[in-house]
Amino acid sequence: MSQLLCVGTVAFDKIETPFGKTDKILGGAATYIGLSASNFEGVDIGIVSVVGEDFPDEYINIFKDRDINIEGLKIVEGGKSFFWSGKYHNDMNTRDTLDTQLNVLENFDPVVPENYKNADIVMLGNLHPAVQMSVIDQVNNPKLIILDTMNFWMDTTLELLHKTIAKVDVITINDEEARQLSGEYSLVKAARKIRDMGPDYVVIKKGEHGALLFYNDEMFFAPALPLEDIFDPTGAGDTFAGGFSGYLAQTKDISFKNMKSAIIHGSNLASFCVEKFGTEKMLQLTEDEIKRRLEHFENLTQFEINLT
Amino acid sequence: MSQLLCVGTVAFDKIETPFGKTDKILGGAATYIGLSASNFEGVDIGIVSVVGEDFPDEYINIFKDRDINIEGLKIVEGGKSFFWSGKYHNDMNTRDTLDTQLNVLENFDPVVPENYKNADIVMLGNLHPAVQMSVIDQVNNPKLIILDTMNFWMDTTLELLHKTIAKVDVITINDEEARQLSGEYSLVKAARKIRDMGPDYVVIKKGEHGALLFYNDEMFFAPALPLEDIFDPTGAGDTFAGGFSGYLAQTKDISFKNMKSAIIHGSNLASFCVEKFGTEKMLQLTEDEIKRRLEHFENLTQFEINLT
Repeated sequence: MSQLLCVGTVAFDKIETPFGKTDKILGGAATYIGLSASNFEGVDIGIVSVVGEDFPDEYINIFKDRDINIEGLKIVEGGKSFFWSGKYHNDMNTRDTLDTQLNVLENFDPVVPENYKNADIVMLGNLHPAVQMSVIDQVNNPKLIILDTMNFWMDTTLELLHKTIAKVDVITINDEEARQLSGEYSLVKAARKIRDMGPDYVVIKKGEHGALLFYNDEMFFAPALPLEDIFDPTGAGDTFAGGFSGYLAQTKDISFKNMKSAIIHGSNLASFCVEKFGTEKMLQLTEDEIKRRLEHFENLTQFEINLT
Repeated sequence: MSQLLCVGTVAFDKIETPFGKTDKILGGAATYIGLSASNFEGVDIGIVSVVGEDFPDEYINIFKDRDINIEGLKIVEGGKSFFWSGKYHNDMNTRDTLDTQLNVLENFDPVVPENYKNADIVMLGNLHPAVQMSVIDQVNNPKLIILDTMNFWMDTTLELLHKTIAKVDVITINDEEARQLSGEYSLVKAARKIRDMGPDYVVIKKGEHGALLFYNDEMFFAPALPLEDIFDPTGAGDTFAGGFSGYLAQTKDISFKNMKSAIIHGSNLASFCVEKFGTEKMLQLTEDEIKRRLEHFENLTQFEINLT
């Protein structure tokens, strides 16, 4: 069985969009990554994260029900879980952070369980680069390390971020962040500069405009599925990463060709995530729905051109 | 031989981008449409447009050299050609119009040459809807009428625009214009509303983010080729339209499946257009370059998913 180690936040989110607002609900990068990856049978998923005593059993059981191993989910006695609150603008592409309470995340020292030190694939969700680096130091030669990050770490701890990026095989980053990290406006040029920083593969996420995968001189593009309504974009990027890494773990094939398929699986799962608030849709998702939407992706993008 | 009738401006442009600026150069929707469509062998292209006496023979010869019929290109004695000047912002997605001189376009009364009244495909480039309507009234049952338009006509002559849209088979429009015309933010919903206005097919152009084709409940998406540099976006949309209509004329197949290929050909040609100022790149383009870039498009978008 292939092992996928997911590192990231497990948290409470409070979200407001033009369609409504939520109370404190389940959120966090590792949550979305794990839930998304759990759609791929035959993958042993382990999470490394931290929560406080306030984290309800009901949420813990969501992971257990999906056979997501939570040995590496530390519960801090007397501590409070990481909390984020945000409000999306009408275009759904931009948001304001209303509140961030780091709580137990502030002193998070990740411990990779013995059982997952030989994980085949390590998916490092967005977190302080020091935490990501600590995980890299604890694992034994994984086949693939994937790192997600964001502009906040570029602003505050760029040097350490660079050191961490140098150690990974794949980086996933959004278009604005790719521009910031590289100093290049053209995403083709940005990807090349970022590949020079270490990662062989660069995935640039463009939200509703899809995702690009760069490798050597090759490029692959997957659109986001055009939807009637985008209800709540929270977690879409992490769901994408979970689908990408989950598919690679399941197929045990990290070739560029298979990464193209992984990008499609990631985009497919992300298209569900945004249809309801928080993790709601991801918790109801059926195998049949996933397959039918993959067919949509095929119809959306595949064509015939006579090149003779 | 299949006939393609192209209607639109033939003009002088003066362009400024972050990469430099031009003097008065050849421009206009019909120019880009015609040049783009002329890459498809076996299509008899006729242009309907108007210029002034100031329009140089050198430019006239560009059309003649490519066997583009200019019987319908009226040269107004003593008149001046339409002139547009614009400046692109750093992101290349937005621009300011610095100057517009309608000149001979102000009283343009299009006359479709007898030889082209039975054209198979009519490509109506962006123009006053009254001009587009006049052309529709002059042609005899073409297999396909394609209309391009812009927000300016929505702001100034919406009712007439609606009447014109009701008479065409395909509309090409950019994303913001689709939203304005439909009152819907979601492009899926916008396309449905626009289809209710008449056209069976709706093409939504998203610039560097590609193009969507809607038909019944089906969708197709073609990305724009990610480029190292976008030098000058002027004419990209018209070049896309020329490739789309030229390919349909050449293949004599207006099925949805073939329209997908037409969208790819249009996107492919548009990717060249933006690489140099004005029509410069389109005038140098070789068959071999076009084919090689189509392979890029294939590699960029085609994938394998096991759906069993």
